[in-house]
Amino acid sequence: MKLSYLPYPLELKHRFGVSGHTRTSTPDVLVCIEHEGVKGYGEASMPPYLGESIESVSSFLGNVNLGQFNDPLLLEDILDYTDSLMPGNCAAKAAIDIALHDLAGKLLGIPCYRLFGLNPHKAPATTYTIGIDEPSVMQQKIKEVEGQFRLLKIKLGTDRDDEIIKAVREVTSLPLAVDANQGWKDVGEASERISMLAENNVVMIEQPMKKDRLDDIARLRELSPVPLYADESVQRAEDIYRLKGVFDGINIKLMKCTGMREAWKMINIARSMGMKTMLGCMTETSCAVTAAAQLSPAVGFADLDGNLLIGNDPFEGVKVEEGMLRLNNLPGLGLRHNTNLCF
Amino acid sequence: MKLSYLPYPLELKHRFGVSGHTRTSTPDVLVCIEHEGVKGYGEASMPPYLGESIESVSSFLGNVNLGQFNDPLLLEDILDYTDSLMPGNCAAKAAIDIALHDLAGKLLGIPCYRLFGLNPHKAPATTYTIGIDEPSVMQQKIKEVEGQFRLLKIKLGTDRDDEIIKAVREVTSLPLAVDANQGWKDVGEASERISMLAENNVVMIEQPMKKDRLDDIARLRELSPVPLYADESVQRAEDIYRLKGVFDGINIKLMKCTGMREAWKMINIARSMGMKTMLGCMTETSCAVTAAAQLSPAVGFADLDGNLLIGNDPFEGVKVEEGMLRLNNLPGLGLRHNTNLCF
Repeated sequence: MKLSYLPYPLELKHRFGVSGHTRTSTPDVLVCIEHEGVKGYGEASMPPYLGESIESVSSFLGNVNLGQFNDPLLLEDILDYTDSLMPGNCAAKAAIDIALHDLAGKLLGIPCYRLFGLNPHKAPATTYTIGIDEPSVMQQKIKEVEGQFRLLKIKLGTDRDDEIIKAVREVTSLPLAVDANQGWKDVGEASERISMLAENNVVMIEQPMKKDRLDDIARLRELSPVPLYADESVQRAEDIYRLKGVFDGINIKLMKCTGMREAWKMINIARSMGMKTMLGCMTETSCAVTAAAQLSPAVGFADLDGNLLIGNDPFEGVKVEEGMLRLNNLPGLGLRHNTNLCF
Repeated sequence: MKLSYLPYPLELKHRFGVSGHTRTSTPDVLVCIEHEGVKGYGEASMPPYLGESIESVSSFLGNVNLGQFNDPLLLEDILDYTDSLMPGNCAAKAAIDIALHDLAGKLLGIPCYRLFGLNPHKAPATTYTIGIDEPSVMQQKIKEVEGQFRLLKIKLGTDRDDEIIKAVREVTSLPLAVDANQGWKDVGEASERISMLAENNVVMIEQPMKKDRLDDIARLRELSPVPLYADESVQRAEDIYRLKGVFDGINIKLMKCTGMREAWKMINIARSMGMKTMLGCMTETSCAVTAAAQLSPAVGFADLDGNLLIGNDPFEGVKVEEGMLRLNNLPGLGLRHNTNLCF
């Protein structure tokens, strides 16, 4: 097997705001793993606050020796090996995992969802994310996608959450998912905001407070009429156990957790613990978004819109039709790519 | 897909004794699922103390309508459906799960271990079980398999454990696994027995006390120099969480847990909790034993000898070579079967 990679900075359609910072591009690296003439594609997306960069991902990938493996289906061995090379580097590891799954599906002639035993017709609706901005700009963004989604996701955790929700509600009556991005200071503030949100048809709330304040979040959950999901509080499988009774569900993202194989474990762990599951993403191309979408028939809720937020997506994969994720029946991830892509 | 089944009582080579009872046969039902001319084989083995019977399994299988599914790879949907039909009936559910995995592998043209991303060369050693009997008979059984295994498994939990171990040690110096089958009454007795066992090269102990006495077992674990594994204390994925700190590892058996898909989840859950894993079996044909062996590269320890204990095995599958499990490279489970088998 041969690994190659290509830095591919993503251009964001809109300036993207979350609690604390905004940006107009996302560092990204595309990966290709070739075996006997068949190519599998993967991707590492590195929003700056997660600590990876084009340099760190390139350095990690440069140290990976896939030449020692001659069967892409030996996922356990290959991914144990890449995981053991260095701690962290989750996006770089995810890029390899995604490319291997694409390759495995292509070699077997089946879509990845069939590798996992999943029914593509059970893929859920996805939210569409409206970044933090001036209320009038947020209203404009919502109007641009009118009729295309069944749920919108609003980033809050600011000192003007009330104002933002009021502005959103002036232009849409869709159910809302809210991502507080650790932005609320304490149980009092969070509880007050959640009461307001519950009256505004908010159906789920992500990461209301700082990721380590699990006792406070557990208290908040007792008070909250809206289900709470962990985002920053959960990264990999081993993190889930301590979240029982703290959150109602977890947001699984390939770039956080090292890829599809770990994500599938996390889905199964959370479900067997009676917790809800969702799949989320970063700003990513259709490569990584489609990889997450392959697993989406197993989760209740998807926030897989990262590919829709960028202007230079080199891939086509999962589509959104009437707000629902629609997977195709091509082998592997089911990607088609721009022929200008150099590999 | 079409399901058929055949009651096939297993004849035991030796009278088989565990703490509390002995028997000379095990009720068993073979299952065949056919899809577009390809057949997958499964099996339900029903040792009487687990509550299933040829009647209950036949009744369950008679109510299963696989005609509603036209893709054997839709494992999530099909197994959710069979699991939802009735509670319990784990062996009957396992029979369907095993046959579907055999079928899926055959349709894709790959061994099941490759479906799970596993390396067959990492299949572990298996123990060989010596049932409770007169010491001289146990010695004879051990001599019969001299040189064939690297580990022996001894069933204890009797009032003559000391005598049994003494007799065993007279004829072998192999490391021993011990299954106490809930037979020790309290922490005092268990602790005393374990001290004796630790001095006799016993490398693991299963289920030292009654399955619900988790607090006592956790106390025992603090005292035990030998790792403790749950058997009766764990059945399915949801049971694992409460065993953290109570046992060092879990014994996963397809007939207890509903099959390969659930077993794979359990392996991943236990590993991510930092617990050890092993795969065990009932007295079974090479069908179910080989199904468990397909997952064995992911566990540290195997007790997959059930097929070696019966005299009328209609299948050939996994082999034991120099004490190690050896998987072949045929598609699906990799079974060959006796042509007299009516399906």
